[in-house]
Amino acid sequence: MAKKIGVIIDFLNDSYERQLNEAAAKCGYEVVYFPSSAAAVGNVDECEILYGHCSRKVVKSAKSLKWYCTCWAGVDHFCDDELYQNPDCLLTNSSGAYGTTISEHLIMVCLMLLRRQMEYTEVIRNGGWETLPGGIRSLHGARITVLGTGDIGTEFARRAQSFHPACINGVRRTVKPSDPAFTAIHAIAELDSVLPETDLLVMALPSTAETVGILSRERLALLPQGAYVVNVGRGTAVDQEALIDALDSGRLAGAALDVVVPEPLPADHPLRRAKNLLLTPHVAGNMTLGYTCDKSVQMFCDDLENYAAGRPLAHLVNRKRGY
Amino acid sequence: MAKKIGVIIDFLNDSYERQLNEAAAKCGYEVVYFPSSAAAVGNVDECEILYGHCSRKVVKSAKSLKWYCTCWAGVDHFCDDELYQNPDCLLTNSSGAYGTTISEHLIMVCLMLLRRQMEYTEVIRNGGWETLPGGIRSLHGARITVLGTGDIGTEFARRAQSFHPACINGVRRTVKPSDPAFTAIHAIAELDSVLPETDLLVMALPSTAETVGILSRERLALLPQGAYVVNVGRGTAVDQEALIDALDSGRLAGAALDVVVPEPLPADHPLRRAKNLLLTPHVAGNMTLGYTCDKSVQMFCDDLENYAAGRPLAHLVNRKRGY
Repeated sequence: MAKKIGVIIDFLNDSYERQLNEAAAKCGYEVVYFPSSAAAVGNVDECEILYGHCSRKVVKSAKSLKWYCTCWAGVDHFCDDELYQNPDCLLTNSSGAYGTTISEHLIMVCLMLLRRQMEYTEVIRNGGWETLPGGIRSLHGARITVLGTGDIGTEFARRAQSFHPACINGVRRTVKPSDPAFTAIHAIAELDSVLPETDLLVMALPSTAETVGILSRERLALLPQGAYVVNVGRGTAVDQEALIDALDSGRLAGAALDVVVPEPLPADHPLRRAKNLLLTPHVAGNMTLGYTCDKSVQMFCDDLENYAAGRPLAHLVNRKRGY
Repeated sequence: MAKKIGVIIDFLNDSYERQLNEAAAKCGYEVVYFPSSAAAVGNVDECEILYGHCSRKVVKSAKSLKWYCTCWAGVDHFCDDELYQNPDCLLTNSSGAYGTTISEHLIMVCLMLLRRQMEYTEVIRNGGWETLPGGIRSLHGARITVLGTGDIGTEFARRAQSFHPACINGVRRTVKPSDPAFTAIHAIAELDSVLPETDLLVMALPSTAETVGILSRERLALLPQGAYVVNVGRGTAVDQEALIDALDSGRLAGAALDVVVPEPLPADHPLRRAKNLLLTPHVAGNMTLGYTCDKSVQMFCDDLENYAAGRPLAHLVNRKRGY
């Protein structure tokens, strides 16, 4: 009897099914497809591998599980040991599938903030056709800081360089050789000295013990008057009350959040009334972009070959570290 | 008595005034500043040179005028012979000052269209937090056509290349060696064969006899189902009724117009009700971006040196051709 791979992906189509079946057959596996996590619970006992958007419940119930590959890049919901019946269960993510779509989101929202597009949307909505007093700003000459220099931060920096910013400084957990898209890379311990030199702070961090609350009230106060903040990592990274205060007082010129606490954001949440705040409903990396789905499936198939051959997995997550 | 330069710029500040005075003094000129065109009419008899946002009335009344340098890139209102008392009067524009700001506008609106940002603005406005069915699209792999490969089209192409499109084809009046940002450059006679291979049509043309109505109903029909149209040149280039039909029928997935006919666009104009149309009130190149103003003043000062030394002007417009 072939070993089993359970697949739960909401973007499944014939072409992905064929691709997954072929990759599995080559490695001696059989694929079982489930339309949803609800349908999978209780039916994954024989699955050695799970791939897709599996709920915690599905993962917890999979008693033969040796490897879970998630479609997401963020794995904060899948790092605790009690989730896995097999303590050595491997976890991989789809980091690398999101750089393209999230970097496009980032460039879009940065330009919308700098060019006051939210206000211009209102001008048009009100039947007007006027130029707002006070001017707009540009990526040209801007001092950009990217907090988190993984796939997403790096792909953003590569695109942002084409707009001729003054600099793009990366800030990461540990300084190591990085992409030439960054002017310089700083260790997170230097964050407080980088913030006062930042016009545009772009945050693309995983949620870990170290990143929760990293943009505190004190750190927000270190940004210069008129700076902008953009977050596509996890909502937990930002002190939201302090952000609202900084926006409403005019200290910050604007912010864009694709991730917030809680999600979904209630209709009456104070964030929705903050000044110059561009909210999007956690869609920067949603898997409706074909490229993202293609890449996630391809990365899983590649790692399946690695797994079957006993080689290290390319997208392995360190569960203790959280990414 | 020093020869006179009349300056009418609405972004005047101390620093620009100093820069202009110094450049003028070096060339034996004296600068006279007017707060507006209305204030200048009747008071520019002695001006050999005019620089800025001068109205047609001011230009027409300037009987000693030998050179008018406009702050705009588009000069369609300043090309007719009867405007100039001196038939050999030189006209220069500020083409070259707008590439930075208009290319940022172009990237922003392209991404807003592809990522359905207008619909997501509505989701948030309605207190929601949901992902729209049907997916989004990407600059990655897109087939882009740029109609008009001057400063604006070229600066856009340079930035767009960093997003890894499938191709960026330029279309221009005459094929000549161009920036490597373009995959290929086609003559305007080939436009009809390029349109069916275009996912995203970006128009940055001056208004001339040849460009009025260039995106006709017939040409709109040549674009593939689900294509996008963006225009930052002149509103006259597009058959607006045909565009509305193509949008409302769903043939086109979206469009973004920063220029329309007429401007200002009346509050009840049918364009305002067209489906998936992103309107901005002719602000892609507005001079509220410091970089644009800096560059325009610098280009005028440089050409003033050329003029005083009897050298050709760098930004000379061919009034017959219209740009």
